[in-house]
Amino acid sequence: MNFPSKLIEEAVEEVAKLPGIGKKTALRLVLHLLKKDETQTQMLADALVSMRNKVQYCQRCHTISDAALCTICTSARRDASIICVVEDTRDVLAIENTAQFNGLYHVLGGIISPLEGIGPQDLKISSLVERLAGSEAQSVKEIILALSPTMEGDTTAFYLQKKLKPFGLKVSTIARGIPIGGDLEYADEITLGRSIQARIAYD
Amino acid sequence: MNFPSKLIEEAVEEVAKLPGIGKKTALRLVLHLLKKDETQTQMLADALVSMRNKVQYCQRCHTISDAALCTICTSARRDASIICVVEDTRDVLAIENTAQFNGLYHVLGGIISPLEGIGPQDLKISSLVERLAGSEAQSVKEIILALSPTMEGDTTAFYLQKKLKPFGLKVSTIARGIPIGGDLEYADEITLGRSIQARIAYD
Repeated sequence: MNFPSKLIEEAVEEVAKLPGIGKKTALRLVLHLLKKDETQTQMLADALVSMRNKVQYCQRCHTISDAALCTICTSARRDASIICVVEDTRDVLAIENTAQFNGLYHVLGGIISPLEGIGPQDLKISSLVERLAGSEAQSVKEIILALSPTMEGDTTAFYLQKKLKPFGLKVSTIARGIPIGGDLEYADEITLGRSIQARIAYD
Repeated sequence: MNFPSKLIEEAVEEVAKLPGIGKKTALRLVLHLLKKDETQTQMLADALVSMRNKVQYCQRCHTISDAALCTICTSARRDASIICVVEDTRDVLAIENTAQFNGLYHVLGGIISPLEGIGPQDLKISSLVERLAGSEAQSVKEIILALSPTMEGDTTAFYLQKKLKPFGLKVSTIARGIPIGGDLEYADEITLGRSIQARIAYD
């Protein structure tokens, strides 16, 4: 594009670096900010910079936190006997929004992916082992693996199972099956097949 | 959503104020910035703030500019006998990208829209009249109205035609018709009807 202003061009270039935002969308966003009050742009910029510079990761579970330990790890109302292992903080937010889990978390910071060169040593796996061997050895009874149902997720789950075996804990994975509200005929055959294998008996 | 960090929550709220970006997308963008180097966030913030605070509007044609007069108005290679009237700077960029127009522009800053309370006095219409009556009285021979083919665009075009009549200039509008590559059977009946009325004779 042929910008009449270098300032606009630079702003568009920076915004277009964000994932899923192309040059046209970036231009729309920049022109929107131009129409609005200057304080809105200032507040946006300040919020981003202070978020980036001040945010920390919980030293125990590695989720995003405003302090050295996150509000979940320090809460007395959480069940310290279950740890849910997830890929990143977004998964923590998603599970928290279901209000169906009251235990603790452990954020791996990614999944094992040979294609992208991510191995077990790049993830917070040894830190999970340290939790189980150290301060939380007495309290933890169960580990739930809540990883994506992909090749990488399954590889990571397999690796974790082996690593966790010596602790003699109950290790489970979240259920895979037909989504609630999903139509049988539109489910892919692998999901449908697994949902038959993993059928649930009526009590 | 239930954020474990106030900093993240504030950043997400600011990003979600942008048009077309919801809370989920905002969270994705914020977490992306967290994964990248701090300098990327700083550069994005700086580019937005300096764009917002330093950008100007061309005093003559009201397009976005880095100086008091834009690079189009000050260029000696542009044809000063034609002024193309558009709604906003995005339209200037779109027309510039076609490389089919070498005249000057006049950005109205909106279109007449009684529903949104935007009247002729809110637009840069008197400024256009001043251009034609003043410094550019001798040079300008033609005005092209390049407004959206909507009710508001047509209203604005009608109003402008009346205002421009005393100057005795040639006033035209961009052609409406079947888009290049468009299929006749998928064209709406109003567009197709107008394209028949405004048929072009082979020379």
